Amino acid sequence: MARDLDKLQRSILRMAGAVEEAIYQATRALQERSPSLARQVVEGDSQIDNLENEVQDECLKILALHQPVAVDLRRCCAVLLICTDLERMGDLAVGIAERAIVLSKLPQPAIPDRVARMTHGATRMVRMSLDAFVHQDAEAARAVIRMDDEVDEDNAIIITELIGGMKTTADQIEAGLSLFSAVRHIERIADHATNIAEDVIYLVEGELVRHHPEAITRV
Amino acid sequence: MARDLDKLQRSILRMAGAVEEAIYQATRALQERSPSLARQVVEGDSQIDNLENEVQDECLKILALHQPVAVDLRRCCAVLLICTDLERMGDLAVGIAERAIVLSKLPQPAIPDRVARMTHGATRMVRMSLDAFVHQDAEAARAVIRMDDEVDEDNAIIITELIGGMKTTADQIEAGLSLFSAVRHIERIADHATNIAEDVIYLVEGELVRHHPEAITRV
Repeated sequence: MARDLDKLQRSILRMAGAVEEAIYQATRALQERSPSLARQVVEGDSQIDNLENEVQDECLKILALHQPVAVDLRRCCAVLLICTDLERMGDLAVGIAERAIVLSKLPQPAIPDRVARMTHGATRMVRMSLDAFVHQDAEAARAVIRMDDEVDEDNAIIITELIGGMKTTADQIEAGLSLFSAVRHIERIADHATNIAEDVIYLVEGELVRHHPEAITRV
Repeated sequence: MARDLDKLQRSILRMAGAVEEAIYQATRALQERSPSLARQVVEGDSQIDNLENEVQDECLKILALHQPVAVDLRRCCAVLLICTDLERMGDLAVGIAERAIVLSKLPQPAIPDRVARMTHGATRMVRMSLDAFVHQDAEAARAVIRMDDEVDEDNAIIITELIGGMKTTADQIEAGLSLFSAVRHIERIADHATNIAEDVIYLVEGELVRHHPEAITRV
């Protein structure tokens, strides 16, 4: 079983790498108004879907063949949940890329500086949640969960600014709506990183922390 | 183990019932401009979160104590995935309710008729995906997956109309953006119903169909 579990670990990390790359490229395509970069993300999504299938297959095979217990069982369940989050992050990266393609054709206003800051926060959460998984570090996972508030705050401020811009300039409505959508996607990527962090805490401590705020703030 | 599996089935169905009710109330609050109904949805979300915790706990206990195989193992894994989708549907219902509260305060234009149609399609998908789960009916699950295209089409048409309205009337921007957001939430509820349908096919046929379009159209 140890060999199969090692293989599973490598597969989920390969998937995580592909998803991180997609998020990085999509957000860069947005900032740099690069439709060609954005198209790469859209085209690369089927690879992420295939990786998800592989990971799920491996997980279910391990559960069926080896009937793991304790930490091995938790590892399989955590991987099953994490790969669902990763796949959705991949879809969100595609969504951002699609908005980037639309925006590159529009006479859009400058993208607010805060979008770069928010993107940085969200991608950092993704990276840290995966590191926490690799190192089975529940404290690092709790730090990720706490970071989500900042991303949510940036999101709220950006949306208020966008509404202001759209009200004064009717030309900006289409671009504003696409940017609104892209920003919401970034926020949801951060939410999925939070889910992964919660799964890491379950993996390490055997305790479900989703919807248990007291388990997150505990140091 | 049979008793624990029966209990798990009852728990996930209780959670599904609460989520369906939240979606129904949230979309009604939107259509009827009822902030009080919307607030009920927001307040009821912690109950759904608690039910998710219960279902996950029961699932993991069954996996750890009874080490199920074959269809029982698939049932536990399917329930674990389905309850994640249900919880997110609950969050989306809260999102719709929050938009309904904002919209009830704004001098909004009439909500396009197509929103009611789209809502009907999405809630039907939710109902049918859960029925497919209860009856372990893979064909019914495939029908749900095929319905998603219609909801996506309604979503695209509504958004084009909303952009048109916002361009001609600057007063409508805030309301338009809230409605845009609510409509996207409805679309995502339909996506989660699709996920549940995919999990049902896995449960019944032991085959993962996510990202395997050929497995969906097969009759």
